Amino acid sequence: MSIAEIIGFLAAFVCSVSMTPQVVKIYRTKKTSDLSLGAFGILSSGLSLWFIYGLLIHSIPVIVGNGIGVGFTLYIIIMKLRHG
Amino acid sequence: MSIAEIIGFLAAFVCSVSMTPQVVKIYRTKKTSDLSLGAFGILSSGLSLWFIYGLLIHSIPVIVGNGIGVGFTLYIIIMKLRHG
Repeated sequence: MSIAEIIGFLAAFVCSVSMTPQVVKIYRTKKTSDLSLGAFGILSSGLSLWFIYGLLIHSIPVIVGNGIGVGFTLYIIIMKLRHG
Repeated sequence: MSIAEIIGFLAAFVCSVSMTPQVVKIYRTKKTSDLSLGAFGILSSGLSLWFIYGLLIHSIPVIVGNGIGVGFTLYIIIMKLRHG
Protein backbone atom coordinates (compact mmCIF):
# COMPACT_ATOMS: atom_id res chain seq x y z
CA MET A 1 0.00 0.00 0.00
CA SER A 2 1.42 3.40 -1.03
CA ILE A 3 1.78 6.46 1.25
CA ALA A 4 -1.11 8.08 -0.68
CA GLU A 5 -3.38 5.07 -0.07
CA ILE A 6 -2.54 5.01 3.65
CA ILE A 7 -3.32 8.76 3.93
CA GLY A 8 -6.54 8.21 1.94
CA PHE A 9 -7.74 5.45 4.25
CA LEU A 10 -6.73 7.51 7.30
CA ALA A 11 -8.66 10.50 5.88
CA ALA A 12 -11.77 8.35 5.30
CA PHE A 13 -11.52 6.94 8.84
CA VAL A 14 -10.98 10.32 10.56
CA CYS A 15 -13.89 11.92 8.62
CA SER A 16 -16.23 9.01 9.31
CA VAL A 17 -15.73 9.13 13.10
CA SER A 18 -15.45 12.94 13.31
CA MET A 19 -19.02 13.48 14.53
CA THR A 20 -18.58 11.26 17.62
CA PRO A 21 -18.10 14.25 20.02
CA GLN A 22 -21.15 15.96 18.43
CA VAL A 23 -23.28 12.85 19.09
CA VAL A 24 -22.08 12.75 22.72
CA LYS A 25 -22.84 16.47 23.16
CA ILE A 26 -26.38 16.11 21.74
CA TYR A 27 -27.02 12.99 23.83
CA ARG A 28 -26.07 14.95 26.97
CA THR A 29 -27.74 18.31 26.25
CA LYS A 30 -30.61 17.39 23.86
CA LYS A 31 -29.89 20.76 22.22
CA THR A 32 -29.61 20.99 18.43
CA SER A 33 -30.93 24.46 17.50
CA ASP A 34 -27.57 25.79 16.23
CA LEU A 35 -27.02 22.74 13.99
CA SER A 36 -27.89 22.90 10.29
CA LEU A 37 -30.23 20.09 9.20
CA GLY A 38 -29.05 20.57 5.59
CA ALA A 39 -25.38 20.19 6.52
CA PHE A 40 -25.95 16.90 8.34
CA GLY A 41 -28.27 15.68 5.56
CA ILE A 42 -25.51 16.25 2.98
CA LEU A 43 -22.85 14.73 5.27
CA SER A 44 -25.06 11.66 5.76
CA SER A 45 -25.40 11.31 1.95
CA GLY A 46 -21.63 11.65 1.50
CA LEU A 47 -20.86 9.02 4.16
CA SER A 48 -23.48 6.71 2.57
CA LEU A 49 -21.60 7.06 -0.75
CA TRP A 50 -18.36 6.13 1.07
CA PHE A 51 -20.17 3.11 2.52
CA ILE A 52 -21.25 2.01 -1.00
CA TYR A 53 -17.68 2.64 -2.22
CA GLY A 54 -16.43 0.37 0.58
CA LEU A 55 -18.83 -2.38 -0.51
CA LEU A 56 -17.69 -2.05 -4.14
CA ILE A 57 -13.98 -2.26 -3.32
CA HIS A 58 -14.58 -4.87 -0.54
CA SER A 59 -12.82 -2.74 2.08
CA ILE A 60 -13.86 -3.65 5.63
CA PRO A 61 -12.32 -0.46 7.22
CA VAL A 62 -14.21 1.81 4.77
CA ILE A 63 -17.47 -0.14 5.26
CA VAL A 64 -17.25 -0.19 9.07
CA GLY A 65 -15.93 3.39 9.47
CA ASN A 66 -18.61 4.88 7.24
CA GLY A 67 -21.35 2.59 8.53
CA ILE A 68 -20.65 4.08 11.97
CA GLY A 69 -20.47 7.58 10.45
CA VAL A 70 -23.87 7.18 8.74
CA GLY A 71 -25.35 5.93 12.03
CA PHE A 72 -23.98 8.98 13.89
CA THR A 73 -25.23 11.51 11.33
CA LEU A 74 -28.68 9.84 11.23
CA TYR A 75 -28.82 10.11 15.04
CA ILE A 76 -27.95 13.85 14.77
CA ILE A 77 -30.65 14.31 12.07
CA ILE A 78 -33.31 12.48 14.15
CA MET A 79 -32.43 14.54 17.25
CA LYS A 80 -32.51 17.74 15.17
CA LEU A 81 -35.99 16.84 13.82
CA ARG A 82 -37.17 16.04 17.33
CA HIS A 83 -35.64 18.97 19.26
CA GLY A 84 -35.54 21.61 16.49
CA MET B 1 -12.63 5.33 -14.43
CA SER B 2 -14.55 2.51 -12.70
CA ILE B 3 -17.98 2.84 -11.03
CA ALA B 4 -16.25 2.47 -7.65
CA GLU B 5 -13.82 5.33 -8.44
CA ILE B 6 -16.67 7.60 -9.59
CA ILE B 7 -18.61 6.89 -6.36
CA GLY B 8 -15.41 7.46 -4.34
CA PHE B 9 -14.80 10.86 -5.93
CA LEU B 10 -18.49 11.77 -5.52
CA ALA B 11 -18.31 10.73 -1.84
CA ALA B 12 -15.20 12.88 -1.29
CA PHE B 13 -16.86 15.84 -3.01
CA VAL B 14 -20.19 15.56 -1.14
CA CYS B 15 -18.42 15.22 2.25
CA SER B 16 -16.07 18.12 1.56
CA VAL B 17 -18.89 20.57 0.74
CA SER B 18 -21.35 19.17 3.33
CA MET B 19 -20.77 21.91 5.90
CA THR B 20 -21.75 24.74 3.52
CA PRO B 21 -25.27 25.12 5.05
CA GLN B 22 -23.73 25.07 8.56
CA VAL B 23 -21.36 27.90 7.59
CA VAL B 24 -24.29 29.92 6.17
CA LYS B 25 -26.32 29.32 9.35
CA ILE B 26 -23.47 30.43 11.63
CA TYR B 27 -22.75 33.48 9.45
CA ARG B 28 -26.41 34.52 9.79
CA THR B 29 -27.05 33.71 13.47
CA LYS B 30 -23.53 33.93 15.03
CA LYS B 31 -24.74 31.10 17.29
CA THR B 32 -22.50 28.08 17.85
CA SER B 33 -23.24 26.88 21.40
CA ASP B 34 -24.78 23.53 20.33
CA LEU B 35 -21.82 22.69 18.08
CA SER B 36 -19.04 20.42 19.33
CA LEU B 37 -15.58 21.98 18.99
CA GLY B 38 -14.05 18.49 19.10
CA ALA B 39 -16.22 17.21 16.23
CA PHE B 40 -15.25 20.08 13.93
CA GLY B 41 -11.61 19.82 15.00
CA ILE B 42 -11.55 16.13 13.98
CA LEU B 43 -13.47 16.85 10.76
CA SER B 44 -10.98 19.59 9.89
CA SER B 45 -8.09 17.12 10.44
CA GLY B 46 -9.82 14.52 8.24
CA LEU B 47 -10.43 16.97 5.41
CA SER B 48 -6.80 18.16 5.69
CA LEU B 49 -5.70 14.53 5.21
CA TRP B 50 -7.95 14.36 2.09
CA PHE B 51 -6.30 17.56 0.88
CA ILE B 52 -2.82 15.99 1.31
CA TYR B 53 -4.10 12.83 -0.41
CA GLY B 54 -5.26 15.01 -3.32
CA LEU B 55 -1.80 16.59 -3.60
CA LEU B 56 -0.13 13.15 -3.57
CA ILE B 57 -2.35 11.72 -6.33
CA HIS B 58 -2.41 15.04 -8.25
CA SER B 59 -6.22 15.20 -8.24
CA ILE B 60 -7.53 18.73 -8.73
CA PRO B 61 -11.14 17.87 -7.65
CA VAL B 62 -9.93 16.28 -4.38
CA ILE B 63 -7.55 19.22 -3.71
CA VAL B 64 -10.16 21.92 -4.45
CA GLY B 65 -13.10 20.16 -2.74
CA ASN B 66 -11.19 19.49 0.44
CA GLY B 67 -9.41 22.84 0.38
CA ILE B 68 -12.87 24.42 0.50
CA GLY B 69 -13.96 21.91 3.17
CA VAL B 70 -10.97 22.74 5.39
CA GLY B 71 -11.71 26.47 4.96
CA PHE B 72 -15.36 25.93 6.01
CA THR B 73 -14.51 23.84 9.06
CA LEU B 74 -11.82 26.34 10.14
CA TYR B 75 -14.43 29.11 9.86
CA ILE B 76 -16.80 27.05 12.07
CA ILE B 77 -13.97 26.44 14.60
CA ILE B 78 -13.01 30.17 14.71
CA MET B 79 -16.68 31.18 15.17
CA LYS B 80 -17.08 28.52 17.90
CA LEU B 81 -13.99 29.86 19.73
CA ARG B 82 -15.29 33.43 19.39
CA HIS B 83 -18.98 32.89 20.24
CA GLY B 84 -18.72 29.81 22.51
